[in-house]
Amino acid sequence: MADLVEFKQHPVDTLRVGKGFSLADADPDATPGYKGNKADGQTILAELDGALAELQEKLFAASRFGGKKRLLLILQAMDTAGKGGIVNHVMATMDPQGVQFKAFKAPTEEEKSYDFLWRIEKEVPGAGMVGIFDRSHYEDVLIHRVHNWATPAELKRRYRAINEFEARQTDAGTKIIKVMLNISKDEQKTRLLARLDNPAKHWKYSSNDLKERAFWGDYMGAYQAAFDETNTEAAPWHVVPANKKWYARIAVQQLVLGALSDMKLEWPKAEFDVPIERELVDRS
Amino acid sequence: MADLVEFKQHPVDTLRVGKGFSLADADPDATPGYKGNKADGQTILAELDGALAELQEKLFAASRFGGKKRLLLILQAMDTAGKGGIVNHVMATMDPQGVQFKAFKAPTEEEKSYDFLWRIEKEVPGAGMVGIFDRSHYEDVLIHRVHNWATPAELKRRYRAINEFEARQTDAGTKIIKVMLNISKDEQKTRLLARLDNPAKHWKYSSNDLKERAFWGDYMGAYQAAFDETNTEAAPWHVVPANKKWYARIAVQQLVLGALSDMKLEWPKAEFDVPIERELVDRS
Repeated sequence: MADLVEFKQHPVDTLRVGKGFSLADADPDATPGYKGNKADGQTILAELDGALAELQEKLFAASRFGGKKRLLLILQAMDTAGKGGIVNHVMATMDPQGVQFKAFKAPTEEEKSYDFLWRIEKEVPGAGMVGIFDRSHYEDVLIHRVHNWATPAELKRRYRAINEFEARQTDAGTKIIKVMLNISKDEQKTRLLARLDNPAKHWKYSSNDLKERAFWGDYMGAYQAAFDETNTEAAPWHVVPANKKWYARIAVQQLVLGALSDMKLEWPKAEFDVPIERELVDRS
Repeated sequence: MADLVEFKQHPVDTLRVGKGFSLADADPDATPGYKGNKADGQTILAELDGALAELQEKLFAASRFGGKKRLLLILQAMDTAGKGGIVNHVMATMDPQGVQFKAFKAPTEEEKSYDFLWRIEKEVPGAGMVGIFDRSHYEDVLIHRVHNWATPAELKRRYRAINEFEARQTDAGTKIIKVMLNISKDEQKTRLLARLDNPAKHWKYSSNDLKERAFWGDYMGAYQAAFDETNTEAAPWHVVPANKKWYARIAVQQLVLGALSDMKLEWPKAEFDVPIERELVDRS
């Protein structure tokens, strides 16, 4: 087997949105911090799954003994960028009882009758959980901005509300990782055509995809505005180049691994006397 | 690579609880219908994951176009029988957005203030979903029977209520698979001792496990009664020998595969004109 090609620089450093970040200058084809190729990426992905699974189990275990830490991964992207594949991969390595996954669709009539954060609050991860949002409250400042469904003043209110909401989650023990998967407009075309060429993928296609695609530039502007307004210390944004699916996967895996490692998780100490309990089981 | 060792008889036939079934006579060490060893089992498990993933995606896709079919896998077992590992495996192959997983713990005060099926009803799978229950409403006729928390008359009422509840799910398009993972009392001892010998597993151990273990015979009686009373055509029970974890996994995989295959699922037909749409995307 080939040697493991590791990251030279950690994605938390290379992909984190910094001061003066410009989405227009971010290259969707790049593989920041990583010199390996697709095969190397697949190897490292598989290699680190065990570590990821163990950290997630420790996080969950700690919560059974009063631990309050938890993780929330927020994924946003243009259609076909590969959110689904990333969710599948991250979740496949974890124990389902420790994961809260939520795909936010267009809001229902009931959801629309409340403030935009009402339906989000109900889905935030409990203590010990890894929460994964496939789309999120950011839709309310992305598609809403693109189609002028909200006034500039209302958008401003929402950015502020989001920052307060996310800071409150952080105060409760939640580490928030916000990820925008960055594909190019050309790459989206390739992927939409591939969907149309495969009858098993037709159900995923909607002519609405094409309608939104026409607003590409406006979406990029809305993402840039979201970064400018909501890239906080507590809940930083990361822009992950996603034209190469394998890179996006290992980058997100690194971000999640990094966040869990930073928590310095330990297995809970037994609250019982192990030798005594062992003796009791043995005689039972 | 070795040849694929397939099942000689399908678990749906060999493991299904039939008339006159006696749990006391079921061998937890057996591997009904399967002649292969552990390595063969692991090979077939991996081999069939792709088919399972495709069937699940078809089920989900159909629901986007009005399909009402769905699946509910109910797992019951004595502690350490391996429910968790089976859930992990089944879910790892599926798209998280098409899976509703629920681990039922001891009921909360609010849940206890309602009829026992109140909290269950809220978790039944939606159209197109695969629901997985780790424990279920059967706790209310198992542990409740063992500890006399319910009178015989109340238990009788619950069996009937369960049958009516499950028939209603079936009427709504739900295929129900009920599985009891059958381990021996000796095997449980081995697994509890292994937990105690591994500090990374101490958090999973509770001295309560030992307390319930003392009621082993009563639990077996409660399971037998549940089979006698709720093994309906609409929602049949399967007793899966689980002393060999690898066998339990391939057996449950077969049961889920079989149920999804029986649904005769097809990819939804495109409701748009593919060549026209292709042209529009190409020019966009």
